[in-house]
Amino acid sequence: MKKLIGTGPVLSPLPLLVIGTYDNEERANVMTAAWGGICCSTPPCVAFSVRETRYTYENLLQTEEFTINIPSSSFVNEADYFGIVSGRNTDKPTTCGLTVKPAPDVHAPMIEEFPLVLECRMIKTVPLGSHLQVIGEIAGILADEDILDENGEPVPGLMDPILYDPRGKKYYRIGEEIGEAFTSGKKFQTVVYQL
Amino acid sequence: MKKLIGTGPVLSPLPLLVIGTYDNEERANVMTAAWGGICCSTPPCVAFSVRETRYTYENLLQTEEFTINIPSSSFVNEADYFGIVSGRNTDKPTTCGLTVKPAPDVHAPMIEEFPLVLECRMIKTVPLGSHLQVIGEIAGILADEDILDENGEPVPGLMDPILYDPRGKKYYRIGEEIGEAFTSGKKFQTVVYQL
Repeated sequence: MKKLIGTGPVLSPLPLLVIGTYDNEERANVMTAAWGGICCSTPPCVAFSVRETRYTYENLLQTEEFTINIPSSSFVNEADYFGIVSGRNTDKPTTCGLTVKPAPDVHAPMIEEFPLVLECRMIKTVPLGSHLQVIGEIAGILADEDILDENGEPVPGLMDPILYDPRGKKYYRIGEEIGEAFTSGKKFQTVVYQL
Repeated sequence: MKKLIGTGPVLSPLPLLVIGTYDNEERANVMTAAWGGICCSTPPCVAFSVRETRYTYENLLQTEEFTINIPSSSFVNEADYFGIVSGRNTDKPTTCGLTVKPAPDVHAPMIEEFPLVLECRMIKTVPLGSHLQVIGEIAGILADEDILDENGEPVPGLMDPILYDPRGKKYYRIGEEIGEAFTSGKKFQTVVYQL
């Protein structure tokens, strides 16, 4: 028997994203977002939601390009800080001692210390209420060599991303591997065939 | 120095969602989706993406209501199976021995064995390419009592949700807690104030 526990923006855990944009003076801004994820395979698209009052949104209206930077768990304090203060009056990455570089293929900054960066071009915005959803096509994926396996693929355990639980307002690491997609479920197909 | 590893729908890890809908004969269908997440705080909204050829989308065009069911890691095989076969010719939950019940507040089925269920009303669709994004307002959150703490809040470690890495096509569990949102980052604010 399930219990109704109200409503709210609750789904857990969510990937923690750090959005990078340039303002009109070419100053780098970064903002943490947890409302976001992949939304299309072809073209590959990512979505994140932002309040329209945020500096990041003001920047996006001009540049229409951004990065999504994935911090490792060792940067949990930095990632949290990027969601607490505004880039209007704070140089957030410098305050934390992080290195900002221009992304090679989009007009947006990226954080060198974070192991994975998506280069994105805004293709659509969807107003929803308190937040506006920004949808971007993923133009390129940049990865630190030390998170790649022998086939050049990023390994989640090496990337060590941060997960967010919005109801409890806590951050988590990724845990153990438990199955393989499009494979683990085949045991039920076998049952059907045997009947 | 970062290495360009191409492009693609890559962000990791993502929450694994099982979408519940009724077809026009009131048969319950469930479909696994990993392209999705929270997209607005007020009203609380969730998004997931679906190919327009999917049975779930056909159902949604008629009912405009759905559930998002969050499986525990012990149901990884079932959740994977729900993404392998189509509900057009398979009663997926029954094949796996799972219990389907009508959700109390929306016209959609829910899986009793899964610890958390979001009841959703479709408010918008966003065509993007291979996938169409479905945006739903969260009408209610239903939780098993044994995943709630003493304040009635769901505990991620007890819910034990499944995470998905799309590049490696692997499933993971959630790991250890590493920080508190809007708190962990305050150390950098203190530095600023001391200067």
